[in-house]
Amino acid sequence: MKEKVLYAKWILPSTEVEPLENGCLVIREDKIVDLGLKDEILPKYSQAEIFFFENGLIFPGLVNAHTHAPMSILRGIAEDLPLMTWLTKIIFPIEAHLQKEWVYWGTKLSLIEMIKSGITLFCDMYLFEPEVIRATEESGLKALLGEGLFDFPSPGYGSLEKGLELTQELLKNFENHSKIKIAVSPHTLYTCSAETIKKCLKIAEKFGAKIHIHLSENKEEIQEIKKRYGKTPPYVLKELGALSENLIAVHCVRLSKREIELFSKHKVKVVHCPESNLKLGSGIAPVPEMLKKNLMVGIGTDGPASNNDLDLFSEMRTACLIQKGIEENPLVLTAKEVFKMATEIGAKSLGFENTGKLLPGYQADLAILDLTHVNLHPDYNPLALLVYSAKSGCVSDVMVDGKFLMRNYEILTLDEKLVKEKIQNIKKEILKVLEKTFNKSEKNNKVFP
Amino acid sequence: MKEKVLYAKWILPSTEVEPLENGCLVIREDKIVDLGLKDEILPKYSQAEIFFFENGLIFPGLVNAHTHAPMSILRGIAEDLPLMTWLTKIIFPIEAHLQKEWVYWGTKLSLIEMIKSGITLFCDMYLFEPEVIRATEESGLKALLGEGLFDFPSPGYGSLEKGLELTQELLKNFENHSKIKIAVSPHTLYTCSAETIKKCLKIAEKFGAKIHIHLSENKEEIQEIKKRYGKTPPYVLKELGALSENLIAVHCVRLSKREIELFSKHKVKVVHCPESNLKLGSGIAPVPEMLKKNLMVGIGTDGPASNNDLDLFSEMRTACLIQKGIEENPLVLTAKEVFKMATEIGAKSLGFENTGKLLPGYQADLAILDLTHVNLHPDYNPLALLVYSAKSGCVSDVMVDGKFLMRNYEILTLDEKLVKEKIQNIKKEILKVLEKTFNKSEKNNKVFP
Repeated sequence: MKEKVLYAKWILPSTEVEPLENGCLVIREDKIVDLGLKDEILPKYSQAEIFFFENGLIFPGLVNAHTHAPMSILRGIAEDLPLMTWLTKIIFPIEAHLQKEWVYWGTKLSLIEMIKSGITLFCDMYLFEPEVIRATEESGLKALLGEGLFDFPSPGYGSLEKGLELTQELLKNFENHSKIKIAVSPHTLYTCSAETIKKCLKIAEKFGAKIHIHLSENKEEIQEIKKRYGKTPPYVLKELGALSENLIAVHCVRLSKREIELFSKHKVKVVHCPESNLKLGSGIAPVPEMLKKNLMVGIGTDGPASNNDLDLFSEMRTACLIQKGIEENPLVLTAKEVFKMATEIGAKSLGFENTGKLLPGYQADLAILDLTHVNLHPDYNPLALLVYSAKSGCVSDVMVDGKFLMRNYEILTLDEKLVKEKIQNIKKEILKVLEKTFNKSEKNNKVFP
Repeated sequence: MKEKVLYAKWILPSTEVEPLENGCLVIREDKIVDLGLKDEILPKYSQAEIFFFENGLIFPGLVNAHTHAPMSILRGIAEDLPLMTWLTKIIFPIEAHLQKEWVYWGTKLSLIEMIKSGITLFCDMYLFEPEVIRATEESGLKALLGEGLFDFPSPGYGSLEKGLELTQELLKNFENHSKIKIAVSPHTLYTCSAETIKKCLKIAEKFGAKIHIHLSENKEEIQEIKKRYGKTPPYVLKELGALSENLIAVHCVRLSKREIELFSKHKVKVVHCPESNLKLGSGIAPVPEMLKKNLMVGIGTDGPASNNDLDLFSEMRTACLIQKGIEENPLVLTAKEVFKMATEIGAKSLGFENTGKLLPGYQADLAILDLTHVNLHPDYNPLALLVYSAKSGCVSDVMVDGKFLMRNYEILTLDEKLVKEKIQNIKKEILKVLEKTFNKSEKNNKVFP
């Protein structure tokens, strides 16, 4: 198979090496095999297919380490409401009527948005996850996916036992899949009993799988878990034997120093979702302290219903800015650290090896920033442009395993126009559901759109 | 003159009225004269020129209430450095060599970025401000502009006396200008003596002009002013007789409750620059407390060297999110409040009347969000889309005083391609300046790009 050579004005291979100006990246099949200045590379690979990005900045594909992709169908449906009103009056009634098709098309909407944000790998937990898997396979993105598990019946799978069966079936089916991995995904400690967590651990152990759980997100959760168990969520997990390098703990807004040390000792992976944590009033995770203790911290957007986008550029920027602001120290979290979290650390946390850098031997998972955008001028510093100035709309091309998923702003794997039409119809169906479940006084009070 | 009728899927005339679905806005010359549903408006204005935005959301043009537009030429030149290193090793050496032409073209780059962010009015303070004025007049944007004044000699005007003369000259020349107003712009209390502030006040009084100053930005400033005057910046201004409805105090990160009440009593205008305050480690302004005391608070991006963009969508979103996060209360600052700050309050603060709403009698200063962007689906709630999901790249059209400045993503008033070419050249000149001013050990330490 012919090599592909990608020339670009800038290549940022990883945070540990200097960006290359007028560099070339050489790809054979799904892997990067060479990297260097244009004048060295082009003569060496004269038979290769050459792609010119004169105004491009090639960077490692971003890793969205936590989301609920199908929730794009609920983006903006209810804002600035108290959490319980939002959940009980809007989200739960809709989720009780959730349709497989909504999940499938909502995921596709999110996949398109993620590709346009330069994301090549993501992690998802929701209901009807087989629909998420189906859409993701079509898209060409890589992902760690799992059906969200609760003690109470789910509109997705029915009883918990069915959910655990579904998880095992998925683990078997995707055991050797090159792009899709399955995680055992108990929702939280307040929706899953200790018994349920133990069952999850058993399955995960059997398959060597990751466990993906929301943890220590806000003070209400900590209070509830303390009430039930007499200890905080990390110590409950410790007692259950859940702390390991396969545990992915999402949010961790409320980790104490001691808990950070505990997680570090057990090599637990943490996912930081700064914008969702802010928007829901959960607080700000102690990321600098986590990094100091060598915790591996990835970055996630969380679901688009509480964010309200899937833009990892914005998430990196916010992650950086809020720590500088609250610590009153502009050096406390740097662009370099945050970019590493959003690429190689995210990839490793989700169990994808040789991913997150553009060096020989790594998978060719990358995105290209189009430097013609006015907000990307001048180009003194590619890393600063990526973390502080870029937006999802500035990515022109995305490649996974050496294949383009987006080329010159056009999504090649999904039908964007069709997806948007379907979403318009789903919007109407969802409004009908709300119409039925709302009573008159609530309508007059304009709780809903 | 024929009316213009703008049809759109959604019109958000102001935060006080419901968004109109399938609405029309009628514009005669520079003003809005009518507003209503498509079926009412179209037959009524059959002779008008009609513009269809089937996938558009028309909203009042955003107001960037504080920036240093020419600093786009320094975007990303130095990141994650201690403030004093950044200032003394990078920014000051470059500004000492500042060229009029750099200011002119840097402003144009920022004007293009602002138009693409849906901004129709902004406020600026920098050096060589006549160049900012020249570029702004070409762009068609509205602005409140002023030469930054310091006690020490400026590369822009020379001695302070010359700076004060320049300010008076500009005030005279632009006294009756419909789009450009001049502000007296003492830089800060630590770069301007009490004498200088008094001179500024005198000039402002003579012309009924606004005074635009950075105030209470970070703890170092408060300490310095306390050392000099034995009181905090707001009380120094009080003593100098500077507190009035014409005072625009930018940042106000460190206002105490008492100082907020003082400002409220004197009707001082505040500009909140959340992202710059975070990035420079200054802190988070107490915006909810300010709103509670009926302070008028606008929103600004600050200069693109410390932000690193001119995206007021991002600024609105960050303003909302950080307050929810630090107060651990998702209701503490709503999309509605923040959108009002970024439109009508900003406009009023800068002294522009009948601006910031799309109601009959108001100026036709507006922007149009292109709802075909994937991150703007579905469209349950126009206001939520604007504050929580929109990005600068999603604006397709911008109009000021009834004239399009951007039409279908194309800037009509400035030559975008030429501006980008000029910026590439200026980048090279700036790197040469830094090359000369840096010594060898600094180069090896990679303080600069």
